[in-house]
Amino acid sequence: MFITLEGPEGSGKTSAMKLVVERLKKDGYEIVQTREPGGTPIAEQIRNVILDINNTALDPRAEALLYAASRRQHLIEKVWPAINEGKIVICDRFIDSSLAYQGGARHLGIEQILSINMFATENTWPDLTLLFDLKPEIGLQRIACNNQREVNRLDLEKLEFHHQVRNTFLELAKRYPKRFVIIDASLSIDDVANAAYKAIWDKLHAQR
Amino acid sequence: MFITLEGPEGSGKTSAMKLVVERLKKDGYEIVQTREPGGTPIAEQIRNVILDINNTALDPRAEALLYAASRRQHLIEKVWPAINEGKIVICDRFIDSSLAYQGGARHLGIEQILSINMFATENTWPDLTLLFDLKPEIGLQRIACNNQREVNRLDLEKLEFHHQVRNTFLELAKRYPKRFVIIDASLSIDDVANAAYKAIWDKLHAQR
Repeated sequence: MFITLEGPEGSGKTSAMKLVVERLKKDGYEIVQTREPGGTPIAEQIRNVILDINNTALDPRAEALLYAASRRQHLIEKVWPAINEGKIVICDRFIDSSLAYQGGARHLGIEQILSINMFATENTWPDLTLLFDLKPEIGLQRIACNNQREVNRLDLEKLEFHHQVRNTFLELAKRYPKRFVIIDASLSIDDVANAAYKAIWDKLHAQR
Repeated sequence: MFITLEGPEGSGKTSAMKLVVERLKKDGYEIVQTREPGGTPIAEQIRNVILDINNTALDPRAEALLYAASRRQHLIEKVWPAINEGKIVICDRFIDSSLAYQGGARHLGIEQILSINMFATENTWPDLTLLFDLKPEIGLQRIACNNQREVNRLDLEKLEFHHQVRNTFLELAKRYPKRFVIIDASLSIDDVANAAYKAIWDKLHAQR
C-alpha cells in the first residue's frame, strides 16, 4: 500500500505520523517511511540542482520537470520495490505537492503539472493521501513560535501564496475523494495522530 | 529566426554547417550557433546528471524529463534572448531528437515526449528544421572509418535502434512539412552544405 502525506509546513504531520507509525508497527505492519529524493543517488543529484542556492535563474517549468524526474527515480528505486515486497510505504509529500505549489500557487496550471507527473509516474496514484489541513495563519504562527520570533512582514506577504496552496489541496481532495482524507491539523497532536491512524486502519481493512 | 539541425551521428551536419555559417555571416547575418545545454550553468548541471557514467540506474522517463528541463533552461537563458535581439539561432539537435530517440527508438511514445516538451518550450517550434538524412548503415561505416576500425558486432546490434531513429525523423518530417527540409546527407559535403544553405536562404526570404 502506498500512502502519501500532504499539507503545509507547520501542520505537525511529522510529529503526528511518528505516533501513527509506532502504532502501525505494533500492529505488525512493515512500514517504509520516505520522502523524495529518498536517498537514491540520482534523485539526490536532481534535488541538488533544484535546491542549489546559486541557481536563482532556475525557471519554474524546469523546476517542475526536475521534481518529476526526481519523483520517477524515487518510485523506481525505492517506492515500487518496497510495495512489491508487501510493505506499507508512507511518503512525505508526493504528486499533490507539485499540483498545489507549482500548479496552483505558482500558476503553472494543475492540468499541465498533472500531465508531466502522469508521464513520470505512469499513472501511479497513492492508495491513500492524508491531507493535514490547516489555515495558513495558524501554520505561520506555529513556525514563528518554533523559531522563537514574531510573525514578520515577509511571512505576511507569503500568506496569499499559502492560501493558494491550501485552496488547491482542498480542490484536489474534492477531485479525488476516494483517496483523500482531510485531517484537521489545528487539533492536538494526539487527535491528529488518532485521525491519521483511523484513516489508515480503515483503508487497510477496506482492501481486505 | 530559430533553426534546428537533426540527424544521426555520422551525417556530416557539423562539417557542412561550418561552411553554411561562413556564407551566412558573409551575407551579413548575425548567427548564434548552439547546442543544449549551451554553456548555461543550470542546464550543464542537469546534463551532468544525464551523462554521469555512474548513473546506470537512470530511468528512461527520468532522462526524458531531464532533457526537457535542460531544454527549457537553454531556451530561457540563451535561445530566446538571441532571437529577441534579431539573431539567427542555429541549434544542433532540439525537440525532434527527443521525439526520435526517446519517443521512437526507446518506445516511450512520440505523443508523450511531445507533451512534456510542449510544457518545457511553451509550444516553441523551430522556424526551420534541417534533417540530415542518412541510411544508418552509411553513418555507421563513416563513424567506423573515422575511428579507423572495422564495423563490429555491437555496431550491428545498434542498427535496429538507428533504423527506428531514422524512421521517426522521417515520420516527423511528414507530420511537420512546413518546417522540415530533408537533406540527403549521403552526398558530398559541398552538396550537403549547398542544400542546407538554400533551405535557410529560402526560409529567410519567404519570411520577408
